[in-house]
Amino acid sequence: MKKIRFAIAQMNPAVGDYKANTHKIITWIRASEKKKADLIVFPELALSGYPVWDLANKKHFVDEGLSHLGRIVRCTARMKIAVVLGFIDRGVSHDQRSRNTLAWIGKGKILAQYTKRLLPTYDVFLEDIFFEPGKESFAIPWKGWRVGLTICEDLWDDRYDEKPLAELKRRGANLILNISASPYYRGVAEARDLLLKRHTVRYGFPILYTNQVGGQDDLVFDGRSLFVDASGQILFRAPAFKEDLFFFDWDPRECDPYVVPLHPSTSKPEEVYEALLLGIRDYCRKNGFQKVLLGLSGGIDSALVAVLACDALGAQAVLGVTMPGTYSSRGSWEDSRELAKRLGIEFRIHPIKEKYEKLLEAYQDHKREEGGRIPPSGKITLAMENLQARLRGMELMYLSNDENRLLLSTGNKSELAMGYCTLYGDMAGGLCVLGDVYKTDVYRLAWYRNQKGKVIPDSILTKPPSAELRPNQKDEDSLPPYEILDEILYFYIEKNQGLDEIVRHFRKKVSHSLVANVIDKVDHNEYKRRQTPPILRVSEKAWFGRRMPITNRFGR
Amino acid sequence: MKKIRFAIAQMNPAVGDYKANTHKIITWIRASEKKKADLIVFPELALSGYPVWDLANKKHFVDEGLSHLGRIVRCTARMKIAVVLGFIDRGVSHDQRSRNTLAWIGKGKILAQYTKRLLPTYDVFLEDIFFEPGKESFAIPWKGWRVGLTICEDLWDDRYDEKPLAELKRRGANLILNISASPYYRGVAEARDLLLKRHTVRYGFPILYTNQVGGQDDLVFDGRSLFVDASGQILFRAPAFKEDLFFFDWDPRECDPYVVPLHPSTSKPEEVYEALLLGIRDYCRKNGFQKVLLGLSGGIDSALVAVLACDALGAQAVLGVTMPGTYSSRGSWEDSRELAKRLGIEFRIHPIKEKYEKLLEAYQDHKREEGGRIPPSGKITLAMENLQARLRGMELMYLSNDENRLLLSTGNKSELAMGYCTLYGDMAGGLCVLGDVYKTDVYRLAWYRNQKGKVIPDSILTKPPSAELRPNQKDEDSLPPYEILDEILYFYIEKNQGLDEIVRHFRKKVSHSLVANVIDKVDHNEYKRRQTPPILRVSEKAWFGRRMPITNRFGR
Repeated sequence: MKKIRFAIAQMNPAVGDYKANTHKIITWIRASEKKKADLIVFPELALSGYPVWDLANKKHFVDEGLSHLGRIVRCTARMKIAVVLGFIDRGVSHDQRSRNTLAWIGKGKILAQYTKRLLPTYDVFLEDIFFEPGKESFAIPWKGWRVGLTICEDLWDDRYDEKPLAELKRRGANLILNISASPYYRGVAEARDLLLKRHTVRYGFPILYTNQVGGQDDLVFDGRSLFVDASGQILFRAPAFKEDLFFFDWDPRECDPYVVPLHPSTSKPEEVYEALLLGIRDYCRKNGFQKVLLGLSGGIDSALVAVLACDALGAQAVLGVTMPGTYSSRGSWEDSRELAKRLGIEFRIHPIKEKYEKLLEAYQDHKREEGGRIPPSGKITLAMENLQARLRGMELMYLSNDENRLLLSTGNKSELAMGYCTLYGDMAGGLCVLGDVYKTDVYRLAWYRNQKGKVIPDSILTKPPSAELRPNQKDEDSLPPYEILDEILYFYIEKNQGLDEIVRHFRKKVSHSLVANVIDKVDHNEYKRRQTPPILRVSEKAWFGRRMPITNRFGR
Repeated sequence: MKKIRFAIAQMNPAVGDYKANTHKIITWIRASEKKKADLIVFPELALSGYPVWDLANKKHFVDEGLSHLGRIVRCTARMKIAVVLGFIDRGVSHDQRSRNTLAWIGKGKILAQYTKRLLPTYDVFLEDIFFEPGKESFAIPWKGWRVGLTICEDLWDDRYDEKPLAELKRRGANLILNISASPYYRGVAEARDLLLKRHTVRYGFPILYTNQVGGQDDLVFDGRSLFVDASGQILFRAPAFKEDLFFFDWDPRECDPYVVPLHPSTSKPEEVYEALLLGIRDYCRKNGFQKVLLGLSGGIDSALVAVLACDALGAQAVLGVTMPGTYSSRGSWEDSRELAKRLGIEFRIHPIKEKYEKLLEAYQDHKREEGGRIPPSGKITLAMENLQARLRGMELMYLSNDENRLLLSTGNKSELAMGYCTLYGDMAGGLCVLGDVYKTDVYRLAWYRNQKGKVIPDSILTKPPSAELRPNQKDEDSLPPYEILDEILYFYIEKNQGLDEIVRHFRKKVSHSLVANVIDKVDHNEYKRRQTPPILRVSEKAWFGRRMPITNRFGR
């Protein structure tokens, strides 16, 4: 067996942008041919981007992809390189579904086509709705090898009766290619490593795994393409969150596992941080936003989002607006100003105090005229708290419309869980950056980022969290301490556990009624989460993949 | 074969309310026993309500249901009646999925259990995610019959390789029971009639079809349970949108098809109107809202929603607020006042003119101080238009919070399609009533309702639609006439067609560029639709069952 040069196209396609994707694909094929690669492998649905959802059921969408595929195929006419590319093929059954397919291309022809068999339909995946499954697996002869073709979920066969890899083994495959669009969550790299090691050792064949990279609405794809040899050794790992064309020379006779430097599997806070950066950057870039804005409250959430936005887009793209209100502490806008100064972003102070007081007066005048009762002066109702948050949301949206800036919303997962946030107020925006990050993890990310350069002032890191919508309000007046809250939420949301089960984890350190209260709040606030913008997903169970009824009378 | 008395429990369960559902189930079983019914049949998942989404994966949710099932089973110990009831059973495989199951109960025991085999996973259904499928069908002997048990989709077998009815025929079934939770859309009754006639004639057995009724978030279940005999004759049809326990005596020796009066399949506008009524009523009732409010703009959409709210909840529950702004015509609040008077609802006038002008001045002062440029006086920017809409949304949300009223949003499907609506402005609310009704259908519903009693003033019915956010603004300045727009939208959204295909329908009466422009707008405004409240579904392709990427560069 001769040495093989693989070109691993860890590509960041834009959904639906056939022209740009085709251009990149052809450019990379040419570059790989020039570098004498034997084979270039693109990710799953590299031509259309992934996920395309209902676009896959549009005949004209599929047809346009096929015509671009034709161009790509033709460009290989005089080349030596083989190309493996994911695209959407027409369906063959009576319904509207199409097929998630892979083409093996060479010498200006499609030499083989394979259709994905295992279609993930759970959590953030709904492929059964859009695609019809392939029926069989096969290995194709190539340079003395028998190459088995697979697409993403075909490897994750635990929950299925069909086992494409076992079938490939029976058909004599001795080298497996997998093209994937596998989205990031904390822990996914470890899960993939384990899976690939298990399969390679069990079946005794190596696997080349090429993954998509990039942000697409709520999802962030992390790349980290891999080559694992038949003994379960990882010989190659592409970096996380980075689009590039990688080359990897594999000598099947060599046993040395470290023929190329491995990109390390990164540490947790860094990994999440990088995922969020890419999510922000790609949402802006792919949707044509050059500039963003956000409200700076003086708290940790908005501070972290400001830093992320700077790191993702550059300071010149970011506008921070602080909107001190009747109950804002002096510190909150001073801290925001200090943060903005350190980051070098544009900073504006637009107080809402007077706007709020005038508007509230007008509302209360209406009420009085209509014979209604006004709460005693000094009493802050929920309606008044929300009014302050909504005035801020409205002003930010005004600026968003006026200056064509994407509004980033800054709420975290703990707040969204508990409904400790205002619809059309702090929840307003085009992209929610931290909605899948628990409050305690927000601190971890802030500490991590500050280690690399101290941008978030200590005063922001150390002050007790507060919505500042009432005098002397602190989050922990109405919420349990975040260390406890986040753990309860984790068991309830990520682990799907019930009241008694959760209480047991705490060995009587947390009361039954406290946990019950948290669960009630999570359930009750489903209606707010129904109205969020996309929320960048970094956990295995994000809101996007959790489907709950709003109308739900189940009491724990 | 003797006469059979069927009790058809066309039930409106509340999702997760095991206690109330169990109480109703037991009450109805007792009533049916008293009336000497031989068999009572409840809808699919009558015990838990449907759809429960991710609740089905919660162990404690399933366990609690099973303990209530036990109570129901025990109550039948001394009864003669047989009971067929849908409930969620534990799964048997390694994943978290449970089973959508039917129990045949009698004499205090579960005599048989059947698990749904065909799990709909498309459009508004995602059952594959939550349930594992049953593996086989069987007929059980009962009073000389062999009864085949099926659950909802088991009848809709066109898109599946498995055919449960064919298997039941082979196993000798001569009477089929189907328990369903089949949601309403325009045309579903006709589709069901055709399906049941086709199956009964083809297989030569009668089918008793029991459907759920009631609203659950976006979905409205219409009931209309059926009995179709082996010759394809509909012998019984329960009314639409009405919860009740119906009795139907069937004499297999009788051939006369009209042994009982048939409830007619209702006419189209009436049907949609009734669906919306039930959707509003159940969302309020099941979520604990006694009162609602809405903004009355003087236009047809808000007028229709006001009428619907009155018909659903009674005039005393409805508050209409008109909020005239700088560009509102005098007619708009006079018309609203006249409407409110006719309906007998509470009516308030809260002008936003001054609030808007003050706030805009403040925003422009900020801009001036920051060195920005202010548009020349008289120019109304998008930011200013949205500001007016958002001020109204904010005031309505203040009233919603202050008086604990559910805010009904009033936008229609044509507007949501085109993005002719403001996030956090007119889109704000807890339930969107007309978001699946095209503008031309809004008129049809208004005409239909006015025939039954003239509540909507002519001036509202005849004025040209306008957002009134700029001087002399009319919808048709920036949109095509609604008769044309709605047809384009229908082909694009419901029929999934592409540009050229749509243009062909109009035989050159509509330009290529006009259709292209509509499609661009629909695609571009996906981000707004991502942030809507539940939208009552009355069409076969509602937004809720249409999944499109926001980030999408596909150009038609």
